This record gives sequence, structure tokens and C-alpha cells, in this order.
Amino acid sequence: MKIKAIGGEFGLIERIKKKTNLYSEDSEEVIVGIGDDAAVLNYNKNSYVLFTTDMLVENDHFSLKYSIPEQIGMKAIEQNVSDIASMGGLPKFAVISLALPNNADVGFIDKLYYGINKKARKYKIDIVGGNITHSKEIIVNVAMLGFVEKKHLALRSGAKIGDFIFCSGNVGSSTTGLELLRNNKRGKSIKKHLEPKSRLGLAQKLVKIGVNSMIDVSDGVASEVKHICDESKAGAIIYSDKVPISRNTIIDAKKIKKNPIDLALYGGEDFELVFTASKNKSKQLKKYDVSVIGEIVDKKYGVKLIRNNKKQNIESGFDHFNRIRV
Amino acid sequence: MKIKAIGGEFGLIERIKKKTNLYSEDSEEVIVGIGDDAAVLNYNKNSYVLFTTDMLVENDHFSLKYSIPEQIGMKAIEQNVSDIASMGGLPKFAVISLALPNNADVGFIDKLYYGINKKARKYKIDIVGGNITHSKEIIVNVAMLGFVEKKHLALRSGAKIGDFIFCSGNVGSSTTGLELLRNNKRGKSIKKHLEPKSRLGLAQKLVKIGVNSMIDVSDGVASEVKHICDESKAGAIIYSDKVPISRNTIIDAKKIKKNPIDLALYGGEDFELVFTASKNKSKQLKKYDVSVIGEIVDKKYGVKLIRNNKKQNIESGFDHFNRIRV
Repeated sequence: MKIKAIGGEFGLIERIKKKTNLYSEDSEEVIVGIGDDAAVLNYNKNSYVLFTTDMLVENDHFSLKYSIPEQIGMKAIEQNVSDIASMGGLPKFAVISLALPNNADVGFIDKLYYGINKKARKYKIDIVGGNITHSKEIIVNVAMLGFVEKKHLALRSGAKIGDFIFCSGNVGSSTTGLELLRNNKRGKSIKKHLEPKSRLGLAQKLVKIGVNSMIDVSDGVASEVKHICDESKAGAIIYSDKVPISRNTIIDAKKIKKNPIDLALYGGEDFELVFTASKNKSKQLKKYDVSVIGEIVDKKYGVKLIRNNKKQNIESGFDHFNRIRV
Repeated sequence: MKIKAIGGEFGLIERIKKKTNLYSEDSEEVIVGIGDDAAVLNYNKNSYVLFTTDMLVENDHFSLKYSIPEQIGMKAIEQNVSDIASMGGLPKFAVISLALPNNADVGFIDKLYYGINKKARKYKIDIVGGNITHSKEIIVNVAMLGFVEKKHLALRSGAKIGDFIFCSGNVGSSTTGLELLRNNKRGKSIKKHLEPKSRLGLAQKLVKIGVNSMIDVSDGVASEVKHICDESKAGAIIYSDKVPISRNTIIDAKKIKKNPIDLALYGGEDFELVFTASKNKSKQLKKYDVSVIGEIVDKKYGVKLIRNNKKQNIESGFDHFNRIRV
């Protein structure tokens, strides 16, 4: 049986989650195991430890045709910081596994590490270890530890019926940038693909105001709302015309003859935040760079999209196993 | 400049260590950063957190020609447990990054996870997260957290002049097994290559008796002694005829026309322990499955091997960048 037959990447994760007997359910030390952006582990009276890992694979997450090594290193850190940020935490320590082809150039590795260090310094992360090995394609795996105050922990599972659904910044630009590159076109979205930035600072402000659930946008807004609903046992209505899309993304989407809303809903790796909060917080929250894009409803209504005044089911999100390699 | 020109894998690690400005030197939270089997981080009054990561790459660390998926999963956990064990700690949590070819079979992944879970249960490790992505070759990266009582922490850097150098179990069997497989021969060493076992239980006993330094054998005994000496600013004499080699390894080495001592000194992935302790501990230590293989001496004498009554310099250890792919 092939991975596609069980629903691709997401089906596979569900299968592993169900099949594995991980001793986590009864553990007092594991607050959240598989199924959120990072694992949540008991630490001390006031704080939890967050533990996450993410891998960048050449020709899947990046291509040397498009990215300089510094950008690959930067992205490897940003995508893990984004996972810690969306839980309400601050990153603190990381270890790095690097696999490189035999003919890899030392200059390339120096530049990759320059990018890693640049971001590690920015976020005050100590790179405390790692290993280097040999492969056909370049692989950069980062595992990261962070800390979150218990009162600020934001999970996927906390959404409540009646919550507004918010989205930070603008979305769809990373995928638009990738499509421009693939089609040999130019545009401002390209930088958003090559140098995505997590929203750590914003996430810290949001959890202080109080959000009920949060996730980072790594597989498209629609997919992220679906993850929140799955974990919160809720439904949602997303208003597609409310999804925040930048002027540059609209201009660039035209060049590749794509609808920018599709790119925002189903395109990956924007590293923006999707979160839900009770309506009475919205005045406070709207001071920040966030938009209301929908509402949490009862589970029986499912996760629906209002588009051109019609109600649609959402499609599944960005799936690495259905992705055309870059 | 190619990786070989700066001394392969070990030269590369040194280069990264020097080039990176990791803010660890002054940190009160980072007890040991890059340069040991695991990073050591402050935790509470009595304990440290250990943080490590290791990657298995298809056709480098394993081949589907030789390994069944269950064995790959088992090895991915064992190699990280071995890093925690050699610091004197107990493993506790792990996250897993998996990269798979598009045509990967779901049955394969089930079996891989069966192996992962088998070992996770054995060592009481909670698998708390991970991610799955797409690649040309199969990649399994594990990042692991463990805990060690402060008084039991064993570092590479603690060896003292006059210490005996010990080696646990028997060494050279994993490499011998690999060579048998490559040469289409049979022998008992093959299982040692396909299903290596860390020495967590033994390591726990050793640190309670009191060792001055410890490392696990992932790149050959000679290389591990050299790592201890580098970090401890010491020299060493290794008696090659004292290096423990099993009868099976001697028999199997003949089949591939190799000297078993070479395989033990320079072959990787036995996951045994090399450690040093003051001579007055040797009576207590010898109750366990360990052998004295040499002595720590002043740095000015370097790291030497006594072989056939002649003093030799040791060669460099197992290097993934000089390795012929399996």
C-alpha cells in the first residue's frame, strides 16, 4: 500500500499516532505528545518544556537552483522557532543533524552555518550539538527546546465554539514565490519563500492577551484551521474573502495565472499564525497585525469555506507526498 | 575546498565548532555544548538535562539489501540511547523526523515504527513528536532528551593522568558484520551490525562506581580514546592486544581476510563504552563486563598504540566521508 492510499502525509501521521503505543497517555510528564506543533513536557511549577523537530530536504523544501546556503540555514532555524512560537513559548536550545553529499564544498557548509548562527543569535538560541553524515541530497534537521509559562501555553486543542478565527500578517506569499521560481518569473513573493520569518514576537503578545488555540501556517490556512478543529473537536467557517493576502502576492499570482486565495488556503510555509480567541478579546487583538477570517462552530457543521457566497468543503492542505519536487 | 581537504567529518566538526559563535561559553545554562556525546544543560538542583541527536541515512548507515525495516527503527533509537548512556544518564523523551521516497510502502513504515516502539518501550522512552517528509533516500533522525544526576555525569573531558582506559564488552563486531554482508559471506557478526545494542544498564553501574571520563564506541576504539584525550588534554597508550574481541569476530574477520584488531580499533558503531577511571577503582570495575586496554598519560606523549611490541601513532577513526557506501 502506498502513502497516497492512506491520505498522504496527514494520513500517515494519524496512522503512526494510532499504531504507536507510546506510554504518553498516562504520563504525568507528557502534557501533549504527538499532535501539536511541539511536545509539551512538565518542567517546573511555572513552566513547561517544548520539544520539536523539523527537517529540510534538498529538492523538496529547497533547491540549490533558488536558495543560497545562508537562506537554507536561516529557514532550518525559522521553521523550528515557528513551532515553538505557536505554542506560546520562547526557543532556547537546538541540536543540528546535517547530511551532505560526498562532494560537498566546505564553503557551502560555512555559509549554511552562517545562516544558522545568524538566526540563532537573533532568537538567543544556543546551538549545543549535532552530527554530520553523508547522503545523496542535502538534509538539515533541527531539534529545538523551548520554554513556555504554563499560563501562556497555546494548543491546537483549545478552540471554543463562538471563538473568532484569526490569521496574522499575510498568507500565500511563500507558495506564490515558489511558483514564480518554478516558472522562471520574478516578483517580491520570492523573498517570502526563500527567507520566511516566524512570528515569535507577535505570538508572545497574543498569548499574553489570551488565545484559546494557536498553530503556525506550514501547510496552508485551510489545513491549519482543520488541524485546530480536529484537535478541539469543533467545526469552523472560514470566510475566504477575509483571508489576508498582500498586494504583492496578488500581483505575483497573476503572473503564474493562479488564484491568490487558493495559494493562501492551500500553500505551505508562510510561518504566520492561525489562532482562535473569544470575541471579547478581538478589540485588544486587532491592535496587532492580525485579521479575523472566520468563526469556530459546533463539530456537526464540519469545517467549511464560504467562497463567492457558496459554502464549500475545504480541500486537504499542502502535502509533501503530493508535491511536485522543486 | 572539499571536506576531505580539512580532514573529513572530524575536521568539519572542529571547523564548525570554531566558526560558530554560539553564546554557550558564558552561559550558566549550558554545562557542555558541542564536543561530547550529548549536550549537558542545567535542569534542577540535582540533575542535568542531556540533549542529543543522530541521523540514519539509507545506503550510508543501513541498506535495504541487508536490514529489515524493524532493525532500522531499532538502530535509530539505540544509537541515541548510547549517547545518553555514555554521559551517565537515562533517556526519557524523543522526537523523530522521517524522510521517505514517494513510493514508500505503508507496510515498511509500520515495521520501521514497530522497531522504534520496541526499543522505546524497552528503555521507557516517550516518543512525543516528529514530522514526515519526502526525500530520495530513507532518512531517520532521532533527537533525544535524557536526565543525569549531577554526581553521575560522565564527560569526555574528565580523564586524568594515570587513569586506566577500559572498554566494555567486545568491539569490532559491527564492522566485521558489515564487511561480511558486503562480501556476501555469513557469520554471527552480522547480527551485531544489524542490531547493535547500547550499554545503558552497564553505564549506570559504572557511573555509580565512579568513572573519570566516558564515550560510546561509534567510530572505533582508537578514535574514541583520541576524543577523550583531545577533550581531557591528555595522552594515552593503548595496548592493542588488550582490546576485547570476541571469538566470533576473529572467525568472521578471517573470512574477509581482515585483521580483527584493525576492525576493533577503526571500525564504527559497536555502541560499547570506552571510559577511564583511577586505578584504585579497577577491582570494583572488573566485576563487570569490561577490560583494561590502556592508560592515560601526559599530553606530551600523544596518543600511541603498542602493537607487536612497537609504538605506533593511531590512525583516524571511522569517517563517513571516507566510507564506501553500503
